[in-house]
Amino acid sequence: MLENKDQSRTSLSQLGEFGLIEHLTKNFTINQESTLKSIGDDAAVLNFGDKKAVISTDLLVEGVHFDLAYMPLKHLGYKAVVANVSDICAMNATPTQITVSVAVSNRFPLEALEELFEGITLASKIYNVDVIGGDTTSSQKGLIISITAIGEANLEDIVYRNGAKENDLLVVSGDIGAAYMGLQVLEREKQVFQVNPNNQPVLDDYTYLIERQLKPEARNDIKELLEKLEIKPTAMIDISDGLSSEILHLCKQSNVGCNLYEEKIPVDPQLINVCEEFNLDITTVALSGGEDYELLFTIKMEDFDKIKGNPNFTVIGHMVAATEGNHLITRSNTKIELKARGWNALSE
Amino acid sequence: MLENKDQSRTSLSQLGEFGLIEHLTKNFTINQESTLKSIGDDAAVLNFGDKKAVISTDLLVEGVHFDLAYMPLKHLGYKAVVANVSDICAMNATPTQITVSVAVSNRFPLEALEELFEGITLASKIYNVDVIGGDTTSSQKGLIISITAIGEANLEDIVYRNGAKENDLLVVSGDIGAAYMGLQVLEREKQVFQVNPNNQPVLDDYTYLIERQLKPEARNDIKELLEKLEIKPTAMIDISDGLSSEILHLCKQSNVGCNLYEEKIPVDPQLINVCEEFNLDITTVALSGGEDYELLFTIKMEDFDKIKGNPNFTVIGHMVAATEGNHLITRSNTKIELKARGWNALSE
Repeated sequence: MLENKDQSRTSLSQLGEFGLIEHLTKNFTINQESTLKSIGDDAAVLNFGDKKAVISTDLLVEGVHFDLAYMPLKHLGYKAVVANVSDICAMNATPTQITVSVAVSNRFPLEALEELFEGITLASKIYNVDVIGGDTTSSQKGLIISITAIGEANLEDIVYRNGAKENDLLVVSGDIGAAYMGLQVLEREKQVFQVNPNNQPVLDDYTYLIERQLKPEARNDIKELLEKLEIKPTAMIDISDGLSSEILHLCKQSNVGCNLYEEKIPVDPQLINVCEEFNLDITTVALSGGEDYELLFTIKMEDFDKIKGNPNFTVIGHMVAATEGNHLITRSNTKIELKARGWNALSE
Repeated sequence: MLENKDQSRTSLSQLGEFGLIEHLTKNFTINQESTLKSIGDDAAVLNFGDKKAVISTDLLVEGVHFDLAYMPLKHLGYKAVVANVSDICAMNATPTQITVSVAVSNRFPLEALEELFEGITLASKIYNVDVIGGDTTSSQKGLIISITAIGEANLEDIVYRNGAKENDLLVVSGDIGAAYMGLQVLEREKQVFQVNPNNQPVLDDYTYLIERQLKPEARNDIKELLEKLEIKPTAMIDISDGLSSEILHLCKQSNVGCNLYEEKIPVDPQLINVCEEFNLDITTVALSGGEDYELLFTIKMEDFDKIKGNPNFTVIGHMVAATEGNHLITRSNTKIELKARGWNALSE
């Protein structure tokens, strides 16, 4: 969605690569003490002292990961940062810096890139991460965004995927499935628009779902919340590909099985209404949707009392021996095998 | 250049994203003590202790940065790592880790990606960097590679672009311009091939140039060489875009001017012969060529005796006051303004 289509455009080639980088990065500020050197040299320099550096990277491709027909560029920039920050949060680390590389085809005017970087700048402020480098170049087709996020943590605070033990409780933050249904709503509106461009969409019943799709937030609050509760998760992962797929990752890497209870999966009331409207099964959407950027983690059973009733967290199951396998216990108390049906960027 | 075109292909979608990543990364080994956690989690964890982390990132796009008609995928993978390692070397730091993200269109079979990762694996071994993460996804068109390199250094060893002072000497490692002429030779062969596919290219006279283009090396030896000579550069940059463009970066960021002596610019004898054959001016090629991945740095004048006659280094000029500007002193002793004519990925 390129706004202001009729304004005069500045072509990227006029600016040149260095001019463009200078132009796009002039709003970035440095907030982290550990950022000793940021954009403007061959590389960035970070001072972690006794802290450990945590690094994660993502490559987002137009037509594969996003559709500019309903994803405004500012939101896209914001979401691209969120997705990476979320990976750092999933290590129980604190996001501190990001690098941002962008390739665009000539169809993008400068103003489009500015919108994108507005979203990136906003997210970097909200999540208090410094943009410490990057690369800007042209592409043969479409927009490509590559972000690397760096975080810091004390070694003893870092949580991996492989620490879950039998009898640990499986916990999820927030609610699940809304981002996927937001996408379904937007896809439908796109098709309506193609048939009748004068149709004004009424999206009041879908605001939460659409916001979860277009402007998701990373759970950088969870680390502190858990510290206050004096809970250290035994394993943790973020939910980018769908709950079932992420649970299976945790189980595989921790060498345990799990029982997930259908009735426990937290969903928003709006999701329930819209699933009914779309004739989709709520549990399927929650298990396979993806892009929720909530955190999924395991805690020791003795920590149950600390987390019980906390509105931020829901206990959705528990870990069992690997030999018992991974199962969903349905509302009708049927035990069915849990399978990964998460989103696959490489499927045809 | 996809080799073995007639073998049966494994489609990427058969493997799925996680299967593909597992498949492609199985040859990576961990060599750095500081790599606490590598591929297989949401993010990588690096232990720098009192060392500082140095991070750099690059995005390479098919048809913009490389042409698979003459760039074999293994070489491309190698070169992509080299380009990033070179950025870390240009900080006078030691490369320690990289992340590698790749997006490919469906026209690429698994075997093509394997070749690419063979080159990446080889370079990671030669430069002793751990591949600690990445992302693999599909693209709408062509191949896209995003690499982030991380290095470590003691704070007092790091060299920035902005430390050059008036009277400092301007020094370059190795020789310049060969990579660009290698590209010209390959472009010509591509055209010959298009006219007559049966023509067997005879490239014996161009081996050095072609190697500089297809398999460049990063100067990770320079840090140690300079330490042994007891020289700490005052400013440093790597030559990826062309000598003139890089000199101007150093001058601008250090707020100095410079005099560059045409007769001092180090070129390989093969470059001289081939420039004659192509009817190109050697100095223009050396100034504007790019992709040499040599290091350009400044040293204090009193260090001249330490570096004089060293086959690894050539003093090519000296820094002057910013008000004096940036000049090339030609062989005929004419002073002409030095202009950036480096490669620009965003030009049309």
